[in-house]
Amino acid sequence: MRVALCQIDTTVGDFAGNCARVVAFAERAAAAGVALAVFPELAICGYPPEDLLLRRSFLAAHDVALAALAKQVPPGLDVLLGCLEANSDAAETGGRALHNAVALLRGGAATIVARKTLLPTYDVFDESRYFEPCSAPEQNVLEVAGVCVGVVICEDSWNDEQFFGRRVYAIDPVARVVGAGAQLVVNCSASPWALGRHEFRARMITAAARRHGVPMIYVNQVGGDVALQFDGGSFAASADGVAAQPVVFEEAMTVVDAAAPWREPLVEPDPVAMQHAAIVQGIRAYVRKFGFRSVVVGLSGGIDSALVAALAVDALGADNVVGVGMPSSYSSDHSLEDARALAQNLGITFHVLPIAPLQQAFDGVLASVFAGTEPGLAEENIQSRTRGVLLMALANKHGHLLLTTGNKSECAVGYCTIYGDTNGALAPIADLWKTEVWAMSRWLNRDGERIPQRSIDKPPSAELRPDQLDTDSLPAYEQLDPVLRLLIEQEMPVEQVAAKTGMARELVAELFRKVQNAEWKRFQYPPTLRVSERCWGGRRMPISHRYRES
Amino acid sequence: MRVALCQIDTTVGDFAGNCARVVAFAERAAAAGVALAVFPELAICGYPPEDLLLRRSFLAAHDVALAALAKQVPPGLDVLLGCLEANSDAAETGGRALHNAVALLRGGAATIVARKTLLPTYDVFDESRYFEPCSAPEQNVLEVAGVCVGVVICEDSWNDEQFFGRRVYAIDPVARVVGAGAQLVVNCSASPWALGRHEFRARMITAAARRHGVPMIYVNQVGGDVALQFDGGSFAASADGVAAQPVVFEEAMTVVDAAAPWREPLVEPDPVAMQHAAIVQGIRAYVRKFGFRSVVVGLSGGIDSALVAALAVDALGADNVVGVGMPSSYSSDHSLEDARALAQNLGITFHVLPIAPLQQAFDGVLASVFAGTEPGLAEENIQSRTRGVLLMALANKHGHLLLTTGNKSECAVGYCTIYGDTNGALAPIADLWKTEVWAMSRWLNRDGERIPQRSIDKPPSAELRPDQLDTDSLPAYEQLDPVLRLLIEQEMPVEQVAAKTGMARELVAELFRKVQNAEWKRFQYPPTLRVSERCWGGRRMPISHRYRES
Repeated sequence: MRVALCQIDTTVGDFAGNCARVVAFAERAAAAGVALAVFPELAICGYPPEDLLLRRSFLAAHDVALAALAKQVPPGLDVLLGCLEANSDAAETGGRALHNAVALLRGGAATIVARKTLLPTYDVFDESRYFEPCSAPEQNVLEVAGVCVGVVICEDSWNDEQFFGRRVYAIDPVARVVGAGAQLVVNCSASPWALGRHEFRARMITAAARRHGVPMIYVNQVGGDVALQFDGGSFAASADGVAAQPVVFEEAMTVVDAAAPWREPLVEPDPVAMQHAAIVQGIRAYVRKFGFRSVVVGLSGGIDSALVAALAVDALGADNVVGVGMPSSYSSDHSLEDARALAQNLGITFHVLPIAPLQQAFDGVLASVFAGTEPGLAEENIQSRTRGVLLMALANKHGHLLLTTGNKSECAVGYCTIYGDTNGALAPIADLWKTEVWAMSRWLNRDGERIPQRSIDKPPSAELRPDQLDTDSLPAYEQLDPVLRLLIEQEMPVEQVAAKTGMARELVAELFRKVQNAEWKRFQYPPTLRVSERCWGGRRMPISHRYRES
Repeated sequence: MRVALCQIDTTVGDFAGNCARVVAFAERAAAAGVALAVFPELAICGYPPEDLLLRRSFLAAHDVALAALAKQVPPGLDVLLGCLEANSDAAETGGRALHNAVALLRGGAATIVARKTLLPTYDVFDESRYFEPCSAPEQNVLEVAGVCVGVVICEDSWNDEQFFGRRVYAIDPVARVVGAGAQLVVNCSASPWALGRHEFRARMITAAARRHGVPMIYVNQVGGDVALQFDGGSFAASADGVAAQPVVFEEAMTVVDAAAPWREPLVEPDPVAMQHAAIVQGIRAYVRKFGFRSVVVGLSGGIDSALVAALAVDALGADNVVGVGMPSSYSSDHSLEDARALAQNLGITFHVLPIAPLQQAFDGVLASVFAGTEPGLAEENIQSRTRGVLLMALANKHGHLLLTTGNKSECAVGYCTIYGDTNGALAPIADLWKTEVWAMSRWLNRDGERIPQRSIDKPPSAELRPDQLDTDSLPAYEQLDPVLRLLIEQEMPVEQVAAKTGMARELVAELFRKVQNAEWKRFQYPPTLRVSERCWGGRRMPISHRYRES
């Protein structure tokens, strides 16, 4: 049996567009002579639909689209794809209104053949908010061309006790369908990418193929949905290897022969290249899905804004990126030079808007209410916010989206000005630690300088007062980042972080307080492209509390 | 048996402070000769702790606090209070790491006597993210002074099939404890207020007392936690009535005699007074929990900012509220006069900072990049953002928190400038429809003018261009609000909203598009005090999607 792995890029709520994509891939699959075409989870409505699932009209439009789609599948082809299913028992049993399901499209009709059993409700996932779990996963099997196929959905594969070394959920749906006779297991997924996630998934699926002695076919959504970046990475694995290397961050149809041996060793991709691809996809998808074409970026001459501009060029092309230098009297001589050099390297438009006249005008208007005070944080923030107003003015006037240039380290400790440098429709690198920002910048320069070397080499500074350096307020990023990783990504207690890193316990505790005290800023921070397993959107901390660790 | 209903105001993570409150109330209860003192859900750690529950150190601190607390309870008094419990079966069965539990403090020791069965995972609630449900709710009974007491936790009471007319969850924990012999049922809650919620709860608990023929004791948390306002409203109900009127929006200890008849009819409070009390509590709690004392509010002369200033005065006192008028050349003559009259009525400090010099300075700096364009939205937004910079400058310089003045109607359709009038640490009235803003303003003037009548009467305007009125862009609020309520609060399909309200379907569809297109602005909006059953924090919509209704 030949199977097509149809890795498509869906858009939430775009029923017509999503179904058109399914039809186009189904026709290609039929032309390639396959018996079965497999599509991702919730392919009709896109993932994640969130509270649109609470609208009756949304569910009705979904059902109309599914029925119409079934009639457009080429004759003789079987299609498995993710869809919604009303839980008809909900009113009687007190369950959720919906199932996260998979339909078989065959002979012009759609039939539900599987329901999701394990509903991720952690990190960025809220599926228990909407879905009733499958109560009998062993029934999620069907026959295709004489082969018994078991169907599981995304998280259903994430409970292999042998692989994880512990039980994550009570039920293992993969074991259930294999126990029910499945000779091939298909997983329809919408699994967002994070660093290492692609490789982890591949090892997990391969381990299941080995453990159960059945081939596994994994089909994942690709494309960007605001913060979440789906890498695709669909593949077919047996105990001996994979059928073909996964394609990442683009739509693809891979055809595999279930009867042939799959023996290719899986090639693990370069991590920095994967981070770059995820962020580039994220910028492109966000800008296009909002109906924009171009972005504007404030260029300070520093490394963060330089990297964001380079990523934007990779996503949208140099013609669609505008850089703006906004020097003040505190800006170093090299700042404007470095920003200009970057713009030249990248081939983007570059405007210079000095803010001194605005600083003076604000000083004048505020003179009466600031009388008798010393210049300090308020004046520093005015500079940052003045720049934020100028960037939004350019964005509004010329129809650009504004990109935020903050990194994860400064976002973590609140080293940023709300309504100033945090302004923007999207934060492309706020899930990249500063040390990762440097690493990616060097990587981008691997074939020649795109980001000025001086922007990479110079000590980081906000340049909001004379001779200011980040290290006036914070440890060097080489010391800071490992501590923040443990505090945030692992939620490790302060005491243990100190023991593990060698940083003084008082300093770790102070950094943890800074992280906690910045929750209110992050609450109003733009959507951040997810790069790590613990991104801001998946970390839900109270913004006002009195918990301290010392 | 005499029982004390201990309605306390906890703070998330403030283990020492929360336990000190429990001890103080327990001592009062012992002095009043009660056998049993009942406290709210998760009283040790405060509700909702969110992802702090993922920190091992947080859980360890909780357990230390609970053990220490047990030793401080006066001898002879039994205490029931909400706490966390590690799920010891988690690793083996694949369940969540925690239970949401109730402990009995007796004789110096704490014993878990109940676990929560129904875990709210909808609206603002995410309990399935953290907790494993109780698998045997009939075991949640204990004996106190010879009486068999059944214990349920908050949502556990929200599944009375007779009361709701349908089954909400599979299990009814109240019926289970009654079936297990409970002669009295205690509910430990952390149930946030919304308009009508207090009355609904009272009817629901009373219906349970009637149905099961057992008295019910309901103890709810009070106080503000950012968006969520807990009203308390603890009470004791039998089939015949309540033991005493519930106290709302303040800490209270109510002592009831379980042997005496409870026959008082429940008095339903005035809805506008409840909204006012909730918002006042919310402002006060937020400002104090962040360690601030005072707030600054931009006063346009319009009704929204006037109401916010009056609410801030009621929360913090006139000495802790600063008003700022920031007229431009487009401001009407009466705008500054009305703002000044408000400040005089309220007795607050009032500054005037005209923005014309700043507008001119921005025009000058932007001249090169705006050359050849017509003034429009970009210039309007600059005015709003300039005001936002001035307000944040005052807040930063003088240590005030900035309050956002937007209402729910304009927040719904995006009639606001991001990084401009949306700036602020807290949005006190962004869950009040414009028509509710007027109603509360009239209510505040019931004993004499606090809000200038002209601010209530004049047609709403953003005053960002000459002779601008809200009705240039939107239907009159009297028509708009009912449509938005149905679209947002009920998620009613566009077609039905048009049929129900008589508004043209095309116009309803356009309003729905405006609501959807404003998701990205609301993503960066400040925390909004919850007033309604469908507040922004409980509505989780994708910000980028292509779903449309026509």
